[in-house]
Amino acid sequence: MALYVMKFGGSSVGDIERMQRVAKRIIEKQDEGHQCVVVVSAMGDTTDDLIDQARLLNPNPPAREMDMLMTVGEQISIAMLSMAIHHQGREAVSFTGWQAGFETETEHGRARIVDIRPAKVLNALDAGKIVIVAGFQGTTADGEITTFGRGGSDTTAVALAAAIQADTCEIYTDVDGIYSTDPRIVKCARKLNEISYDEMLELANLGAAVLHPRAVEYAKHNNVRLVVRSSFNYNEGTVVKEEASMEQGAVVSGIAYDKNVARITIRGVNDLPGVLAKMFGELASAKIDVDIIVQSGVMNGKADFSFTVSLEDRLGALNVIENIGGELPYEEVTSEVDLVKVSIVGAGMVSHPGVAAQMFKAISDQGVSIKMVSTSEIKVSCVIEAGKLNDVVSALHTAYGLDTEEQAFVGGPQDRR
Amino acid sequence: MALYVMKFGGSSVGDIERMQRVAKRIIEKQDEGHQCVVVVSAMGDTTDDLIDQARLLNPNPPAREMDMLMTVGEQISIAMLSMAIHHQGREAVSFTGWQAGFETETEHGRARIVDIRPAKVLNALDAGKIVIVAGFQGTTADGEITTFGRGGSDTTAVALAAAIQADTCEIYTDVDGIYSTDPRIVKCARKLNEISYDEMLELANLGAAVLHPRAVEYAKHNNVRLVVRSSFNYNEGTVVKEEASMEQGAVVSGIAYDKNVARITIRGVNDLPGVLAKMFGELASAKIDVDIIVQSGVMNGKADFSFTVSLEDRLGALNVIENIGGELPYEEVTSEVDLVKVSIVGAGMVSHPGVAAQMFKAISDQGVSIKMVSTSEIKVSCVIEAGKLNDVVSALHTAYGLDTEEQAFVGGPQDRR
Repeated sequence: MALYVMKFGGSSVGDIERMQRVAKRIIEKQDEGHQCVVVVSAMGDTTDDLIDQARLLNPNPPAREMDMLMTVGEQISIAMLSMAIHHQGREAVSFTGWQAGFETETEHGRARIVDIRPAKVLNALDAGKIVIVAGFQGTTADGEITTFGRGGSDTTAVALAAAIQADTCEIYTDVDGIYSTDPRIVKCARKLNEISYDEMLELANLGAAVLHPRAVEYAKHNNVRLVVRSSFNYNEGTVVKEEASMEQGAVVSGIAYDKNVARITIRGVNDLPGVLAKMFGELASAKIDVDIIVQSGVMNGKADFSFTVSLEDRLGALNVIENIGGELPYEEVTSEVDLVKVSIVGAGMVSHPGVAAQMFKAISDQGVSIKMVSTSEIKVSCVIEAGKLNDVVSALHTAYGLDTEEQAFVGGPQDRR
Repeated sequence: MALYVMKFGGSSVGDIERMQRVAKRIIEKQDEGHQCVVVVSAMGDTTDDLIDQARLLNPNPPAREMDMLMTVGEQISIAMLSMAIHHQGREAVSFTGWQAGFETETEHGRARIVDIRPAKVLNALDAGKIVIVAGFQGTTADGEITTFGRGGSDTTAVALAAAIQADTCEIYTDVDGIYSTDPRIVKCARKLNEISYDEMLELANLGAAVLHPRAVEYAKHNNVRLVVRSSFNYNEGTVVKEEASMEQGAVVSGIAYDKNVARITIRGVNDLPGVLAKMFGELASAKIDVDIIVQSGVMNGKADFSFTVSLEDRLGALNVIENIGGELPYEEVTSEVDLVKVSIVGAGMVSHPGVAAQMFKAISDQGVSIKMVSTSEIKVSCVIEAGKLNDVVSALHTAYGLDTEEQAFVGGPQDRR
C-alpha cells in the first residue's frame, strides 16, 4: 500500500463526463490497494467566467475580494468530484484549502504557504476515505482567504505530498509527460522517462508549461517524487526526482523556448560605479523582473547594455529608465519585441565542454543571429528573432540527438492552475 | 449613529445592475451616519444551477458535499458586492459564514446555529468598513461546512443582529413589507406598518413567504427589531417587534393561506387508550410533520379522525398508517388533495370573542364548506376546497375591515433564501 497525491487540472475535470472519468481513475488507484489524496483545480472556464463577471462590477477589484471570489472555483470542483466518487460507490470527503490546513502568507493572489496542518486529511485517510482537496488556496493565520497564483494547484499537490509524506505525487495533465521540446513544434519530440528537479526547474521557468516552477522548487526542497502523466491514458509519464539517470547519454535533456520576451537597450551610459546597481534597483522597486542582462565593453568612458523583461513589463521598464535619465545620463534607450528566448537544458552539460558552441553553430546554420546569451550550470539561453523559432528549435533538437521516430501525442491546451 | 444589519435576498442581487443598486443603497445608509453589516444570499439562480450540475453527477448526493457546493453561491455574492462597493469608493470586506463566526450543529442542509463569535465583523466595523457576510452558512465545531436550509439568510441576518446588538435588522425583499394578505389575490391588501413577532410567526408558518419562521423565532427570542422593506423603493416597510400597536383597532391583522395541504382520514378506529399516541408517534418517527388533527365523536366504540400533512408527505403518511393497521385495526384510510388552509391571524383576537364565528359565516356565505378547523390564541385556521381560495380570502379580508383603497405593489417572485 502506498500513499498517493493525485492532482488533476481544470481541463481534466472540465465537464461532467471528464469528472466521472477522473472519479473512475481515482477508484482504480484505490482498488490497487493505495490511499488517495486528490487535488483539483477549478472546472474548465469557471474561474475565467467569475473574473469576467467581477470586472463588470469593478475593473480593478481588491485582491482580497478576488481571492474570495476565485476560491469558489475549486470548491465547486471538490464537491462535484466527491459526489461523482460517491455515485461510483466509494466514500470520499472534500476539503477546502483552510480545512486541509493550508496556512499562507498574507499576500493575496500570490500567497506562499507557510505551514500545513493536515489533521483532517490524515483522519479521513485513516477512515478509509478518498480525500479531495481544493487546489490553489489557503488562509492566513488571521483566517483571511488567499490564493497561490498561477500553478497554484501544482503547489498544493506537492506541498501536501510533502506534509503527509506521500510516496508519490502524480500530476495528471493533458500530455503524456515532459517532452524534450514542445511537440507542437517538433513532431519527433521525445517523452522523457526521467528528469532531475533542476532540469525541470529550468524547463518550467522557460515556459514548458506543464509544471509550475514553484511546485518544482517545493518538490526539490522536500524531495517529493513527482510523476507527470496524462489523465487521458495509462502511459507511464515522466518521473521528476533528485538525480535522473542520463537517458541514452544525452547531454541535453530538452529544448525550451519563451515567447514572452522584450529587450531594452540603453546606449552611451556613463560608466560610473554603481550605475547598474542603481538602474536595476529602480526596476526591482517597480516590481519588474529582469531576466538576461548583457553589458558591452566600455568605450570612451561610456557603455551600452541591454536586458530582457516580459512583454507586459516593457513599457514600465522604459518608464523607469526614462525617469532616472536625469540622474544617470545616457544617450538613448530603445526597446525591441518579436523576440524569443531558446534554451537548451541538461544536467550533463557541466562535464561536457563545447555544448554551448554546438548551440551557437546550430543557430547560425539556420541563418539566425544571436542577440543575447545567458548561461547557467545546466542551461544555455539565446535570444533570437521570433520568426525563426520553429526552425531553430527543430535544428537544436536534431543537433543534440533528441529526435525519436514515434510521433508525440499532442493534447489540448494545458492546465495552468 | 445606529448599527444596521441589512439583508438582501437572491433576486435583489440577481444581476450586475441590481448588485450595483444594492451597493448604492448600502452606501446611502452609511452616508446617513450609520454602521452597516450586510447579509446576502446567492445571486439569482446560482444555487439552482449548481444543484442541477450536481444531480448529473449524482442524483442522490451526500448532504455534506451538497453543503460544500451550495455555500459557494453566497461566497460569490459577498465577493461581488464588496467589489461593487469598492468601485463606488467605499471600503468593504466580505466574510464567509465561518469567518463571521457562525458555529452550527452538525446536521447538513438544515444546521441550527449554536454560537456566533463575530470578532472579525466587529473589528472591521471599528475600522469604518462596510461588512458583508454570506448568508445561509456556518461551520461545525469540527470545521465542517454546513447550511441552514430554506430561509437561512434571514436567520443569518437576525442572528448576527442579535450577536452584535444591532439597532435594527432590515430584510430587503421585492415587496413593500408584510401585507394583510397576499396582494396577488386581494388587490386592496393593506401593507401593515407594524406586526408582533407572534403574528408574524403565524403568518410566516402559514406560507406568507416573506420572512422565514426560524428567523422570526430567533428575532422574538432575542428581541431583535426587524423591518421588512423593499429593495426597489424607499417606502417605510413593516416593523416586526414585541408588541405592535393594533392598527385602527383591527382585531385581525392578516389573512394567510397554505396550498401545501393533504388530508388523511382514518375511519372506524377502535377507541383504545393510546391509539392517537401510537399513531402520531409512528408518524413523527417517519419525520412526517402533522398539522391539524380532528377527532370525531366516538360511536359504538369506534372513532373517525383526520389530520393534515404536506403534499410531499401524503404517501409517506398513508404508508405509515397502513403498516400499523395490524396492531391498531381500523376500517378504512383515505387521503384527499386539492385543499387549502386559510387562516386569520391577530393578536387582538384573544380579547374579542366571536372572531371565529365571523370567519365561519364569511366562508359559508361563499357557499364553501369547512372541512377542518384549528385554533390558537392568535389564529383560526380552516381547511377548505382549493378551488374557492381567492373568493374566501377576499371575503375574509373585507369581513375583517382590512381592505384599503390603494392598490398594493406586487413584486416578482420572492427571495426564498
